Amino acid sequence: MAESSFLSDILRRVSVAPWRDSSREADLASMCHELLSERSEASGLILAREILDRYEISDDAAKVTFFEALARSFGVDREALTTAVADWEHASEDGVVDAARRLHFAAEPQTQELIRVLNRVPGATAQLVRMRADLLAILPDRPDLRGLDTDFRHLFSSWFNRGFLEMQRIGWSTPASVLEKVIAYEAVHEIAGWDDLRQRVGDPDRKLFGFFHPAMPGEPLIFVEVALMVKIPGAIHDIINPEREMIAPEDAKVAVFYSISNCQKGLRGISFGNFLIKQVVADIAQELPGFDTFVTLSPVPGLRRYAESAEEGDPVLEGFELPQEGGPAPDAARKLAAKYLTQAKRKGGTAYDPVAHFHLSNGAEFHDAHGAADLSDTGQSNSWGVMVNYLYDPAKTETNHHAYANDGVVAMSSKMRSLARK
Amino acid sequence: MAESSFLSDILRRVSVAPWRDSSREADLASMCHELLSERSEASGLILAREILDRYEISDDAAKVTFFEALARSFGVDREALTTAVADWEHASEDGVVDAARRLHFAAEPQTQELIRVLNRVPGATAQLVRMRADLLAILPDRPDLRGLDTDFRHLFSSWFNRGFLEMQRIGWSTPASVLEKVIAYEAVHEIAGWDDLRQRVGDPDRKLFGFFHPAMPGEPLIFVEVALMVKIPGAIHDIINPEREMIAPEDAKVAVFYSISNCQKGLRGISFGNFLIKQVVADIAQELPGFDTFVTLSPVPGLRRYAESAEEGDPVLEGFELPQEGGPAPDAARKLAAKYLTQAKRKGGTAYDPVAHFHLSNGAEFHDAHGAADLSDTGQSNSWGVMVNYLYDPAKTETNHHAYANDGVVAMSSKMRSLARK
Amino acid sequence: MAESSFLSDILRRVSVAPWRDSSREADLASMCHELLSERSEASGLILAREILDRYEISDDAAKVTFFEALARSFGVDREALTTAVADWEHASEDGVVDAARRLHFAAEPQTQELIRVLNRVPGATAQLVRMRADLLAILPDRPDLRGLDTDFRHLFSSWFNRGFLEMQRIGWSTPASVLEKVIAYEAVHEIAGWDDLRQRVGDPDRKLFGFFHPAMPGEPLIFVEVALMVKIPGAIHDIINPEREMIAPEDAKVAVFYSISNCQKGLRGISFGNFLIKQVVADIAQELPGFDTFVTLSPVPGLRRYAESAEEGDPVLEGFELPQEGGPAPDAARKLAAKYLTQAKRKGGTAYDPVAHFHLSNGAEFHDAHGAADLSDTGQSNSWGVMVNYLYDPAKTETNHHAYANDGVVAMSSKMRSLARK
Amino acid sequence: MAESSFLSDILRRVSVAPWRDSSREADLASMCHELLSERSEASGLILAREILDRYEISDDAAKVTFFEALARSFGVDREALTTAVADWEHASEDGVVDAARRLHFAAEPQTQELIRVLNRVPGATAQLVRMRADLLAILPDRPDLRGLDTDFRHLFSSWFNRGFLEMQRIGWSTPASVLEKVIAYEAVHEIAGWDDLRQRVGDPDRKLFGFFHPAMPGEPLIFVEVALMVKIPGAIHDIINPEREMIAPEDAKVAVFYSISNCQKGLRGISFGNFLIKQVVADIAQELPGFDTFVTLSPVPGLRRYAESAEEGDPVLEGFELPQEGGPAPDAARKLAAKYLTQAKRKGGTAYDPVAHFHLSNGAEFHDAHGAADLSDTGQSNSWGVMVNYLYDPAKTETNHHAYANDGVVAMSSKMRSLARK
Repeated sequence: MAESSFLSDILRRVSVAPWRDSSREADLASMCHELLSERSEASGLILAREILDRYEISDDAAKVTFFEALARSFGVDREALTTAVADWEHASEDGVVDAARRLHFAAEPQTQELIRVLNRVPGATAQLVRMRADLLAILPDRPDLRGLDTDFRHLFSSWFNRGFLEMQRIGWSTPASVLEKVIAYEAVHEIAGWDDLRQRVGDPDRKLFGFFHPAMPGEPLIFVEVALMVKIPGAIHDIINPEREMIAPEDAKVAVFYSISNCQKGLRGISFGNFLIKQVVADIAQELPGFDTFVTLSPVPGLRRYAESAEEGDPVLEGFELPQEGGPAPDAARKLAAKYLTQAKRKGGTAYDPVAHFHLSNGAEFHDAHGAADLSDTGQSNSWGVMVNYLYDPAKTETNHHAYANDGVVAMSSKMRSLARK
Repeated sequence: MAESSFLSDILRRVSVAPWRDSSREADLASMCHELLSERSEASGLILAREILDRYEISDDAAKVTFFEALARSFGVDREALTTAVADWEHASEDGVVDAARRLHFAAEPQTQELIRVLNRVPGATAQLVRMRADLLAILPDRPDLRGLDTDFRHLFSSWFNRGFLEMQRIGWSTPASVLEKVIAYEAVHEIAGWDDLRQRVGDPDRKLFGFFHPAMPGEPLIFVEVALMVKIPGAIHDIINPEREMIAPEDAKVAVFYSISNCQKGLRGISFGNFLIKQVVADIAQELPGFDTFVTLSPVPGLRRYAESAEEGDPVLEGFELPQEGGPAPDAARKLAAKYLTQAKRKGGTAYDPVAHFHLSNGAEFHDAHGAADLSDTGQSNSWGVMVNYLYDPAKTETNHHAYANDGVVAMSSKMRSLARK
Repeated sequence: MAESSFLSDILRRVSVAPWRDSSREADLASMCHELLSERSEASGLILAREILDRYEISDDAAKVTFFEALARSFGVDREALTTAVADWEHASEDGVVDAARRLHFAAEPQTQELIRVLNRVPGATAQLVRMRADLLAILPDRPDLRGLDTDFRHLFSSWFNRGFLEMQRIGWSTPASVLEKVIAYEAVHEIAGWDDLRQRVGDPDRKLFGFFHPAMPGEPLIFVEVALMVKIPGAIHDIINPEREMIAPEDAKVAVFYSISNCQKGLRGISFGNFLIKQVVADIAQELPGFDTFVTLSPVPGLRRYAESAEEGDPVLEGFELPQEGGPAPDAARKLAAKYLTQAKRKGGTAYDPVAHFHLSNGAEFHDAHGAADLSDTGQSNSWGVMVNYLYDPAKTETNHHAYANDGVVAMSSKMRSLARK
Repeated sequence: MAESSFLSDILRRVSVAPWRDSSREADLASMCHELLSERSEASGLILAREILDRYEISDDAAKVTFFEALARSFGVDREALTTAVADWEHASEDGVVDAARRLHFAAEPQTQELIRVLNRVPGATAQLVRMRADLLAILPDRPDLRGLDTDFRHLFSSWFNRGFLEMQRIGWSTPASVLEKVIAYEAVHEIAGWDDLRQRVGDPDRKLFGFFHPAMPGEPLIFVEVALMVKIPGAIHDIINPEREMIAPEDAKVAVFYSISNCQKGLRGISFGNFLIKQVVADIAQELPGFDTFVTLSPVPGLRRYAESAEEGDPVLEGFELPQEGGPAPDAARKLAAKYLTQAKRKGGTAYDPVAHFHLSNGAEFHDAHGAADLSDTGQSNSWGVMVNYLYDPAKTETNHHAYANDGVVAMSSKMRSLARK
């Protein structure tokens, strides 16, 4: 159950005496009931703080016990709900909207109020996000706790509304305590240490932007890494390479989004990426006028898995031969990727590939594909080294999005169109 | 429909050409439906911004039309709700909590989602708060819109959670743009201008604290004014008096809360006062250790109204003669206040007086009463000049609160006890 | 002996007991000798703080006594100086520069070291600036103290080097404690109160910029007020007028410097104005590209004084008749101003008018003159209401400056040239 | 000729085309003469910027040529100086102070004015400090340039006055760009990388404080590292040890200054250390009241050098036998150190050891000595592993300082007194 490496390191090295008798630990749920019964708002802060702190030092079993109690014993006032249901069923046409609304409030599980009351304590938001991360970790084995998770998700979705987020540029003048988290959270192309980081955030032709929430200062929610380049890159090595030549920002022609990382496990399902990319596009366009090419250099995480498990006769694999050993030739892999990205679909008509789905939903266009573009183990095992450019053209985003969302149409360059056809 | 005086002054003096054709104004509600139908998050920002801006320049009639559409046409998916109701009614004992939860989500009116989506636009929160202020202003005449208001209130209550608020000291180094709002929002003892303000925020024996929300920077939600004094004051003139002698903070023995003002009409019903007072008590206690007396000097807004409309034989008025002209003698008024504050109740056993109810709920004690303490017109017309001290004793707050909340017991000093008995 | 009105007001209202026996007050100079004899740097801070604080509460007579002691008893080591002089006189050609340098250091009065040591105390810089303001106030009657003043001026000139100053935009979000000083320090067109101020700093077509020194936070050294307008103004009423119509900044064509005020009496002779104007020009040019007309609307403070005391036959007054009563006709006054500004000179060939001299030295051009442009009493008594535009054309500044500095040539528009000739 | 490693790294990787023709490079001195002849302040900024930038990209030989020209050709007005000398020689007793003052100003070398004018450019201060670092580097071989250095030193001493410095706590939330410099500048106990740094600045029982100048933001001038401990440490390993146990700050009894590093070669001779230590003592005493033991754990850099080059019969070495191989026994080395620190003197009676001299001048007491306390190569080669505690007792600082400064008396604990005597 994750913590920043710095904090955990400190905890390891400080010899903390247990600050209170742990015999009461089993009572976390009782303390929560007490908290809700409290009608005084302020005296509740102390109790709420205690619940949160006690939770944090609980072991995994105690946490599961706590979740079980939350899921079961913080339901609704059944009598009131029965009445509300009856009112709704007998409502006149005029009154039906309000009756449904009353039904909605009557059916609100007490867990939601509990989470809101816990959140009153300064600093609680981050603790609640970590609590949900714990819950998500056990959810695959505990489908009975899924309902509980919907309460967390519902509230977080409201609290982490785009309007409450702040985009910040992260640079070499950013506090080390934040940069340390960037190193830890980078999920796509690992950061090899402080020297690598310094290049990604401090070089004049590199930028890194993140979203932050005011109640979680210094804690990025998501960040995107951008390279300013003279042309659209065809391999990750062109970007992450300690010996590369830097360019002056004013000589750049293309902004490349080469990595986007969600930082908070506890915020799974709350989407920020789309907003972040478009905000960054807007910011760069304002800072460097005349700049108009915004592309990604993206992995194709589902390609190899799809190819290796495709049914016979799948048109995506037509003309492609699965290699027995090693990978396919770069050109073959590239052509396969073009077919895969345009033709492999999920139910409902969306793209099979999750990264493709993300960018196409955002209104991007499938612009180019490159073989032998990511030679790392991950790159090999995901996509035989293929990487892809998605193009964000502000003038077409809206149209592309609609076509994809409504009809499953994948926007693509003519080059990709013919490659996919061959 | 309120705006800061600065802004409205600028608007008056700038000759703004209408920035768009107003013919579409009637379509605000249609634009909202379009916004919800949008599956793209980012392209929705532009539409949301347009809805909010168009709303702001609408006239009162257009706003009412908009509210009517919101209340009526953003209901629920009735089919889904019918199913959820049936599921709940047939749920097993084990499944009833989750069934109620699903019912809750199925019954959520679309207005809530609409408000959340509008809020994604940077700066939208303040606009939505003003929107609700508009709604509240017409609510007395339009009970049919009350349901709509519960949606606003529900969301604001979640968004303006104590955990998201920041307490700030407001002083003479605070931006003038914020100080100007303090002048405008002071609701208890009017601030006569910048010189008066300078004393209230800049004098070494005066303090002013407010709560702010990160999404509404520079916009106080509530503030409280504090005077550091050598003894508990018996009249507002001891505090607000340009010729008074200042004292050095380290000579003070008593911190007096002499004014508390809610600033945002659109946040009515979301309570901050209790949290603010207790936070200020904690802050002052930390800054000036040894300091232990925290009192209010409070108005008694309901006293005269109660006395003049009391039924014959009301024991509160026993021995008190309603004056025909002018007010009662200060001593008589003071004694009346003591009886009134301890005996005049609303249904449910809470204090009749709203200010008394606020402080007693917070766990304060009714400590003293003073005649001829507020000689202003308001003071006369509210309470024949009587003012009252409520004492916040951190050691007793919890007990007082419980006794009042559970049993309607009013904590009071022995002095007030005997005064009320006489 | 000036203080901010806020501070003096607080001091008036706080009953301050004298914090120490004043019998030692006559010993300020002895304390200074003790301070210099101290070889320990840190223990000296306490003594330095005491000297500064004691000085501040001294009365005027005690301050004069202190200055006399400073001027007389903090001289040089005469023996060392005699040796250094001899060395210099006998220095070889190769060694003469270093010999002069040693002579320079040997001749340094101890007052300079004293002022530097006093300045080590946090906050001392502002106190030393006030100390010099006191000294300047008595200098006209005490020419024997002029030498002392050169030490202050020498050090301040080094400490308030342009490289150490920060330009800040002062707006309606600036702390009230700074804005209050702007009201107090405005020296050209009085600010009538907070509403007037709010227009000058907060209106979208008004700007105010100042220089600050890091050791005197919140204390402007100089500020300039700028109006963004559609055309070059011909009267101060076009600018300072509560009922005027504002314009959007992007509609402006001209930036008008209509007031420039030095704030610190104790920094007299240290010039900031030239740097400030050019920095503001650069900033506005960057913020609003395409903007290229920068003018002043300036008073002509010496015009009437010159005209009324001119000798017979002075060519400046040729064709002008001194009015017996009231002022001259606007056109006559305007023509007189054109002649006066181009022909009335001081010894050395610089312009007689101090404001003209300031702008011409900076490389500005005398662009236009207007009668009946300042109808205030000051405007009448200075210049019969005439005001003048000086034009700052970045392309010509350098040339204009050289021509004026080297040859006394006044740059002027052809319009002014012909007006002055008529 | 030092630069931050980050900057130099960027310069290495950016392929910078030379931005201007270098043929004029030899003319740096002529440009300086032009700058001083300029009477316009603002047009001079461009010229000054050009001089500074051109200097920075000059090679070493060109820099030396530039220094030679500065030293030779920016002397005084000899005629004016001759007159001033004559005036001084004939001055009356009353006028002699002012005559010396005029002589002082007449003898000021033009280099000082040149340096002041160069400093007007934003950012110039750091460039001038680097320029002096270059000068200092060649001074040992060029005694003829020492006079020039006195001008730099004189001005820097005034500009970097204690009153202009800001002390800042440097922690794990400090920008990485500053932390990187701490790693680079640490001069006593090398910082092994970011993990080591994180412990030194981020652990709850470690602190690091530095002085900064407003004109050199992000650039520490000096910093001191502090460990909070339960007892006075006897070896550096107790402090710098990745596996050590941390303690909670409130359990600490002793604050240990274990490293103090000057950062700017160009500020040699401008002393900050004394002020910094005492400011840190004051800050910690305020933050953690009750805390009263402040000691150093210091190296003894001159011990071995002194012992190995001492003359026969030196009483410091009485009873000590120089080891032929390896070092002396820890006890023997410790005893030698006690004698050395109290008896080995320079001319003038100050301590031979530079670190001892620094702390004794500050009023600290020689408190304890430890053998085998620094096992690093440096520790061995400096002092056979001996380290020393100096104690800062605020109550005795003043007395200790005076006794040492006036009479060369070394304050020491009775333990050290008897050790030195044995």
